[in-house]
Amino acid sequence: MPKKQLRIGLIGYGFMGRTHSNAFRKVNNFFDLDYQPVLKAVCARDAQNAGAFAAQWGYESIETDWRDLIARADIDLIDIAAPNNVHAEIAIAAARAGKMILCEKPLSMDGPEGKTMVAAVEKARVPNMVWYNYRRVPAVTLAKQLIDEGRLGRIFHYRAKFLQDWTISKDLPQGGAGLWRLDAKVAGSGVTGDLLAHCIDTAIWLNGAMDKVNAMTETFIKERKHNLTGKVEKVGIDDACAFLARFSNGSLATFESTRYARGHKALYTFEINGEHASIFWDLHDLHRLQYFDHRDEGRVRGWRSLHITDGDHPYMKNWWVPGLQIGYEHTFVHQIADFLAGLAKGKIPGPTFKDALETQYICDAVLKSARTGRWEKVPKAK
Amino acid sequence: MPKKQLRIGLIGYGFMGRTHSNAFRKVNNFFDLDYQPVLKAVCARDAQNAGAFAAQWGYESIETDWRDLIARADIDLIDIAAPNNVHAEIAIAAARAGKMILCEKPLSMDGPEGKTMVAAVEKARVPNMVWYNYRRVPAVTLAKQLIDEGRLGRIFHYRAKFLQDWTISKDLPQGGAGLWRLDAKVAGSGVTGDLLAHCIDTAIWLNGAMDKVNAMTETFIKERKHNLTGKVEKVGIDDACAFLARFSNGSLATFESTRYARGHKALYTFEINGEHASIFWDLHDLHRLQYFDHRDEGRVRGWRSLHITDGDHPYMKNWWVPGLQIGYEHTFVHQIADFLAGLAKGKIPGPTFKDALETQYICDAVLKSARTGRWEKVPKAK
Amino acid sequence: MPKKQLRIGLIGYGFMGRTHSNAFRKVNNFFDLDYQPVLKAVCARDAQNAGAFAAQWGYESIETDWRDLIARADIDLIDIAAPNNVHAEIAIAAARAGKMILCEKPLSMDGPEGKTMVAAVEKARVPNMVWYNYRRVPAVTLAKQLIDEGRLGRIFHYRAKFLQDWTISKDLPQGGAGLWRLDAKVAGSGVTGDLLAHCIDTAIWLNGAMDKVNAMTETFIKERKHNLTGKVEKVGIDDACAFLARFSNGSLATFESTRYARGHKALYTFEINGEHASIFWDLHDLHRLQYFDHRDEGRVRGWRSLHITDGDHPYMKNWWVPGLQIGYEHTFVHQIADFLAGLAKGKIPGPTFKDALETQYICDAVLKSARTGRWEKVPKAK
Amino acid sequence: MPKKQLRIGLIGYGFMGRTHSNAFRKVNNFFDLDYQPVLKAVCARDAQNAGAFAAQWGYESIETDWRDLIARADIDLIDIAAPNNVHAEIAIAAARAGKMILCEKPLSMDGPEGKTMVAAVEKARVPNMVWYNYRRVPAVTLAKQLIDEGRLGRIFHYRAKFLQDWTISKDLPQGGAGLWRLDAKVAGSGVTGDLLAHCIDTAIWLNGAMDKVNAMTETFIKERKHNLTGKVEKVGIDDACAFLARFSNGSLATFESTRYARGHKALYTFEINGEHASIFWDLHDLHRLQYFDHRDEGRVRGWRSLHITDGDHPYMKNWWVPGLQIGYEHTFVHQIADFLAGLAKGKIPGPTFKDALETQYICDAVLKSARTGRWEKVPKAK
Repeated sequence: MPKKQLRIGLIGYGFMGRTHSNAFRKVNNFFDLDYQPVLKAVCARDAQNAGAFAAQWGYESIETDWRDLIARADIDLIDIAAPNNVHAEIAIAAARAGKMILCEKPLSMDGPEGKTMVAAVEKARVPNMVWYNYRRVPAVTLAKQLIDEGRLGRIFHYRAKFLQDWTISKDLPQGGAGLWRLDAKVAGSGVTGDLLAHCIDTAIWLNGAMDKVNAMTETFIKERKHNLTGKVEKVGIDDACAFLARFSNGSLATFESTRYARGHKALYTFEINGEHASIFWDLHDLHRLQYFDHRDEGRVRGWRSLHITDGDHPYMKNWWVPGLQIGYEHTFVHQIADFLAGLAKGKIPGPTFKDALETQYICDAVLKSARTGRWEKVPKAK
Repeated sequence: MPKKQLRIGLIGYGFMGRTHSNAFRKVNNFFDLDYQPVLKAVCARDAQNAGAFAAQWGYESIETDWRDLIARADIDLIDIAAPNNVHAEIAIAAARAGKMILCEKPLSMDGPEGKTMVAAVEKARVPNMVWYNYRRVPAVTLAKQLIDEGRLGRIFHYRAKFLQDWTISKDLPQGGAGLWRLDAKVAGSGVTGDLLAHCIDTAIWLNGAMDKVNAMTETFIKERKHNLTGKVEKVGIDDACAFLARFSNGSLATFESTRYARGHKALYTFEINGEHASIFWDLHDLHRLQYFDHRDEGRVRGWRSLHITDGDHPYMKNWWVPGLQIGYEHTFVHQIADFLAGLAKGKIPGPTFKDALETQYICDAVLKSARTGRWEKVPKAK
Repeated sequence: MPKKQLRIGLIGYGFMGRTHSNAFRKVNNFFDLDYQPVLKAVCARDAQNAGAFAAQWGYESIETDWRDLIARADIDLIDIAAPNNVHAEIAIAAARAGKMILCEKPLSMDGPEGKTMVAAVEKARVPNMVWYNYRRVPAVTLAKQLIDEGRLGRIFHYRAKFLQDWTISKDLPQGGAGLWRLDAKVAGSGVTGDLLAHCIDTAIWLNGAMDKVNAMTETFIKERKHNLTGKVEKVGIDDACAFLARFSNGSLATFESTRYARGHKALYTFEINGEHASIFWDLHDLHRLQYFDHRDEGRVRGWRSLHITDGDHPYMKNWWVPGLQIGYEHTFVHQIADFLAGLAKGKIPGPTFKDALETQYICDAVLKSARTGRWEKVPKAK
Repeated sequence: MPKKQLRIGLIGYGFMGRTHSNAFRKVNNFFDLDYQPVLKAVCARDAQNAGAFAAQWGYESIETDWRDLIARADIDLIDIAAPNNVHAEIAIAAARAGKMILCEKPLSMDGPEGKTMVAAVEKARVPNMVWYNYRRVPAVTLAKQLIDEGRLGRIFHYRAKFLQDWTISKDLPQGGAGLWRLDAKVAGSGVTGDLLAHCIDTAIWLNGAMDKVNAMTETFIKERKHNLTGKVEKVGIDDACAFLARFSNGSLATFESTRYARGHKALYTFEINGEHASIFWDLHDLHRLQYFDHRDEGRVRGWRSLHITDGDHPYMKNWWVPGLQIGYEHTFVHQIADFLAGLAKGKIPGPTFKDALETQYICDAVLKSARTGRWEKVPKAK
């Protein structure tokens, strides 16, 4: 049976443009699906950049204005891999044009903006999803399964960190290609929207709603040269952010992110402690899950290092053979596989725009608490 | 040359009575010192318990009232290994009697009480020390050396946790022998004074003064049967406590402790991230120190797992040969060795009562912040 | 500049057919190369299987007789992913037809057969390579660089293991699709050719020529049902093999492989100890390299856990960003990238057929020694 | 009830003299036993050395001739901590004098010599034991329990290594105090008797009798200055030794030891793979045992890292509380505790002289095989 074509229009050609394109190209080699992505067009302001990217990844055509891309009748889905400050405008226009939308995370610059995006896709009834890819690391998906099966019992603690060290140098400029994440006007925030948003998305998926937060932020390097203006400008982003939280299920949590943790490149870790069992995961060894089950016999009770490469682990029967690990890029393949499967079934899995709005509200509360020095309630996403 | 005798009077015969006694007995076998502890007397309210302990550890005599012990002329040093709520009364009396004092941690029930203890030992000018033993894990002492040598550069982050899981069962009673740590009237607080006090003592030793804190606490099991009254009573201690902190050196910190982290028995860990280097340590593998130095050549830069068993590691030339590890109990041996060496030199090393008071003030601020929901400043210990 | 097309004809559609196809499809997305593989045809005896594979991977056509594939003028390169017992016949015919050849490992059923293959490709002067993919795990390639730079100094020890546990059950049959590796007539040998061949290829690449070996083998399950005959037949393969070896550089080595090591799926590890430094690697965490350098200052000397994800690590600048790991399949991408780059430069990198013949001779000596119970010299591969 | 005194006469005051003395002094503080060691006398050829050691460890008297020590009526037990070449003469004399004997490992210079020692203690019917201390690391004792309970099922593989790096320097001399282990005339052999003997003792305890071996040895540094003669002399010991072995239970084994494995100080490891479960242990983290059980549910099956500090782990209820680790020296305390308990019950536990003779025969076979280049049978120890 020939597959149904899903014609993709990608906006952006940076790091995330690459991860998405790789996923679109590979998904049908490994997953048996009714739909097949077709790389129809890539859009970038600069035609030469767009052309080079199209050649490298096999896009059939290019656009230099995203409005033109959205206007094309031969595009089914708009994939937004552009900086944060243009997500809303593009997504709302795409929704109005009736396109399906995949949007990079974070959803928006803040909660209110995100709310307009959710309204747009809900009004247009277009399938939508946000690229919080870490939900689909097989080890993380397994954690979700184990929690949903009730193996942990009552949850007491959740803790997550996302530690990097790439902005310690004072000489690093801000702004422009590759460095827009340091520019508050483009990124919205620093580590909160970039890194903690990942931690929060996973956390509410695994542990349910968050009620309130109490945060601190810091900007260690106060001024940096701006690549676009050429001038030394005040740094507006948060270099580091840590917060306490309470979940609706009664558990206590700590979250921390920084780009000043020497020795860590992308150390996203989380741990969850339940009455009966605990789970720990670490992005630097993403193919492992640490699991402790108190119901094991006492003398041989210990943390189990699960090597997530067996056929009964999530997604893994589609890849190689037991013992052989996959990596970072595969999380995007899994996400598009689930999206395509959901499309065929008429039910798009999360994280949808609405799910991602919840994360956005939490980020807002975190940043607000860092200003007020108090506990801030998380607004409900409805 | 015959050694000078230091005649010990121990109060308490529980877990800590054992660790101290073992240290007193072993120290001269491994360290070359002018002083030699002599196990003169152990004091416990019950004569039979005192007698059994004396027989097992080689104490020459027993007392059943600590006042009698303090009154004895053949005692040079009072070692307090009794519950927290009697530290102050005993210590002040001992100071007045001109005895040297070693006191179990935490120093006192709270800061104000601790202040009276500091005043007493300072007035009496008696050598004094508090058993914050983890400073003298060789790996932790090495961390101190590396920091003091400036290897880490500017410090950005400090994080510490002390996780246990022994009170998860609802059926565990509170109070009485072995369980007084669950009784707020005896312990003063829960994990804050018992476990976070250790984390704080190490932190201020390694990273300097702490300015302010923002905390949350929780008591998961609200009522437990009390062993002494036989009734179900409200639980007054904190089962879990987490707090954000800012140090005077500009670094940000997170601290967390709980007795509800399934899978962890005594997982005291800390990490410190500096501009050039980072350090991580873990009590469950206490003979290792993880060290990352960014100045290493890029291709071979990574976290180094230091096996702290070499002759050039702190304290280790006094033990066995490279590769052979020591354990928990040795930290007490090191502390008494340093105390005895300090006595000979006329300069007692920390943590003195005064140092421990600083920790007490931080604990107070933590508990206050947990009540107020705000940042609380740490009072200065002078 | 348009890329030169390299038209691939693949023989075999199993596990290795998939790894190769994935590599052919991805290589130009990530590596900047003059050549581009084109998936021209896949060959399998069964047309339906061939067709399904072609559809899944995008091959333009199918063949059911490899002779027909070789005869096609529109094929530049024959990729052999069929069982071991047909490598020689196919490779020799392909060489005679002037095709380039990529051949799965092990090269042949034994040394003498391999010698005829080397003769054929050398006579035909066709580019050739054998898929010993583990050389191109970035961590392993880095190990090679460090050794070639002389960082280890004189080498004293080499040790390698490849441990699996998938054949412990007595009920597992032998022979036929997916299980031909248990059938001595098809596989040639058991773990020696399947797993130790990998260990040997890496070893002679990293540590130079091997002089002599002393081996033992064992077949734990003596009889298994044969899938093709339906009868219980004697098992002809080695289930386990361990051997001692001496290298020409004076170092001593131990090698071991088994499919009866409960708890290990594909635990290929090697360690090399030199005068100044040592290296350890492990396929279950393939993105890490453990490195110890005795020249580090004593107090902070320890094994470094290198997370091989930085831009200055081999191959890694072509993938994602620091901290994000790749997996097993990427080793095949690297191999084809190096092959294509070599093609452009006119110099094909190893392992060539001739290199792989050296491994074959060592396997022969190992199996012979297991029979004779003595040290056996390794014949020189020329 | 007053304890029965066991009056000790120690011969030797080096590294092992210290480990034994520490054990004698501590054992009654931690274990409830009928017997109590009394440190009656230490013997060393030099009176000053003997006196200093006696003062440091609390021995009541000294001797300078071991014959005089054995002749003393107030000595119940002779503890031999002198170099290997005097074990036999001392032990035989002690047995004749009716003394109990504890002897450092290896038992003797070779099997025939060891046989005379066994004959002597059996004729005299004196309690005897050899200090193969690693049997009594709690993790190793737990391994023994798990194996004896049949949890592993049929055993397929055993592998052990003991890796050090302290003799790599060419400038290290041989012979005399602290370096007699490099002098073949005093040590008997190099790593075989010093390190592999430990591996073999554990192996036959855990895995039963060994049938035959096939070994290689190497002396990397051929000549070293001799400390006693002052001349450069040929090195007679084996610097490295590796061997293949077959056990009576049908399992295959590899053993390796060296003093040239850069980065390892005392890395004694063993792994045992059974049909159902596997075990791994490592002296560098001696308080952990790695355990894999295939009967665990598939999705959460993994290697368990057991932190051997709980009350239900061997020996651990006698020490501290869960989570707090012990170290190397405690293995000697456990051994003397078991000896004293055995004495009270009239049944001395292993390893007895006779058990240690079995290890000696295996060492002999290993060294013989290294010379002949063939498999050598292990003589039976009876």
